[in-house]
Amino acid sequence: MTTFILRRQLTIEWGQCDPAGIVFNSRFFEMFDTSTWLLFEAALGVKPQALAATFGIIGFPLVDARANFLKPAKFGDAVEIASRVSEFRRSSFDVEHKLTINGELAVDGGETRVWAARDKANPDKVSAVAIPAEVIAKFG
Amino acid sequence: MTTFILRRQLTIEWGQCDPAGIVFNSRFFEMFDTSTWLLFEAALGVKPQALAATFGIIGFPLVDARANFLKPAKFGDAVEIASRVSEFRRSSFDVEHKLTINGELAVDGGETRVWAARDKANPDKVSAVAIPAEVIAKFG
Amino acid sequence: MTTFILRRQLTIEWGQCDPAGIVFNSRFFEMFDTSTWLLFEAALGVKPQALAATFGIIGFPLVDARANFLKPAKFGDAVEIASRVSEFRRSSFDVEHKLTINGELAVDGGETRVWAARDKANPDKVSAVAIPAEVIAKFG
Amino acid sequence: MTTFILRRQLTIEWGQCDPAGIVFNSRFFEMFDTSTWLLFEAALGVKPQALAATFGIIGFPLVDARANFLKPAKFGDAVEIASRVSEFRRSSFDVEHKLTINGELAVDGGETRVWAARDKANPDKVSAVAIPAEVIAKFG
Repeated sequence: MTTFILRRQLTIEWGQCDPAGIVFNSRFFEMFDTSTWLLFEAALGVKPQALAATFGIIGFPLVDARANFLKPAKFGDAVEIASRVSEFRRSSFDVEHKLTINGELAVDGGETRVWAARDKANPDKVSAVAIPAEVIAKFG
Repeated sequence: MTTFILRRQLTIEWGQCDPAGIVFNSRFFEMFDTSTWLLFEAALGVKPQALAATFGIIGFPLVDARANFLKPAKFGDAVEIASRVSEFRRSSFDVEHKLTINGELAVDGGETRVWAARDKANPDKVSAVAIPAEVIAKFG
Repeated sequence: MTTFILRRQLTIEWGQCDPAGIVFNSRFFEMFDTSTWLLFEAALGVKPQALAATFGIIGFPLVDARANFLKPAKFGDAVEIASRVSEFRRSSFDVEHKLTINGELAVDGGETRVWAARDKANPDKVSAVAIPAEVIAKFG
Repeated sequence: MTTFILRRQLTIEWGQCDPAGIVFNSRFFEMFDTSTWLLFEAALGVKPQALAATFGIIGFPLVDARANFLKPAKFGDAVEIASRVSEFRRSSFDVEHKLTINGELAVDGGETRVWAARDKANPDKVSAVAIPAEVIAKFG
């Protein structure tokens, strides 16, 4: 478990809610994706648009996403999302996203991503490559 | 594992894809939600809008969603989603969604939902209630 | 033209962009809808969830939306949206949304909405009703 | 006004609706964008992914979008969208989208797009170019 945490505060929008008056599930996955980009920007000090160029990767494609919905979030609710890398492996990593409302856990989300680069021999192919030690070090 | 399967064919839309040219992850969760509604409509022979009235429930809220992304889906790809209830429990159930491209599994999705009704004593409260045997029977 | 302006700053998210690497058009309409809610919250000092109860309306449904796309917005771009009511009529009003990037107008959006309430004689019917003078006064 | 019309039937999805139980406005713009791609695919007999390669363009970016919302569309509603090019100009064109429910016009949408190619002298620059006569001829 790394120690660097990215927290952000959001207010639930009308257009994110469904006829039951609560956030439609796919919207949480949008929020988590954005939190992961912001987490890497904050930890590495590199703008998302420059991440690829800086580290010679095409990005960190998502290979698994999951969320446990414990409490509904409604239009106008003030929520906080706290995100951090829960584990770095050789070429993949897990991100956890805890969305809370008034301090209570409402959505417990997780992602698994790979550190991916174009194959030097075959640029049409993308494969997972080792995550640089200096990247991992920035997450504490 | 029930035997009733709902299959639908979709063509990936421009607006569902991200700058990497592949479907943005949240879009798969939208597709899966719709497949679950259509699965219940097809198995029970009841329009989604009438499900609640027919069975005295407020719906079947999602408590868990997950997806494993094995292959990317791109703009214009013809995909098939095959959905079925993998397990019925007393008041909750699991739905599996297999999204394939040319017969190859691209996204392996899953949902856990509860059969939920308003509390008779306290209508502001929603709780999981037993899934009727005749509902389960329709899924084979 | 009223004088009360709601400005907010956003950073374009990966999931808002399409394979051309620019914001997909529907996303701007999501942003504008949220800006209108925030504009009314700020001008009237009433939370969006309480707007209906405070003024005896069901909301202010959109009857027309439009946008002119002058410059693309890309992933990571810092944008500002400045929104204000451009005209109040008896029971409808127009909102203009100017989205700028580095001070340059990128999207020029507009909405027409009606001030709508349930019909007292027939609660199933919703109709446009007169906008209270004290509401209009708050927008300067 | 050209005569080639692309009609498609859709059923409104739960996730497309907002807390008022009706389709959230941005969703109509998603539908219209897809209808335009399908209209060009049907008229030209070229898959969307191949449009750019076939005609030497980068696509037909949207420069203006608008919609008039006449009747709400609700979860489960069967809708039809009829789309056609209402006018071709030298390097731009208008598309109209008529969304009907049971034959009644519910949303009257429109788009203006440009036929855009990379500048030969400066490939970083994209500009509007003349729409080939054989393209226009296919729309009748």
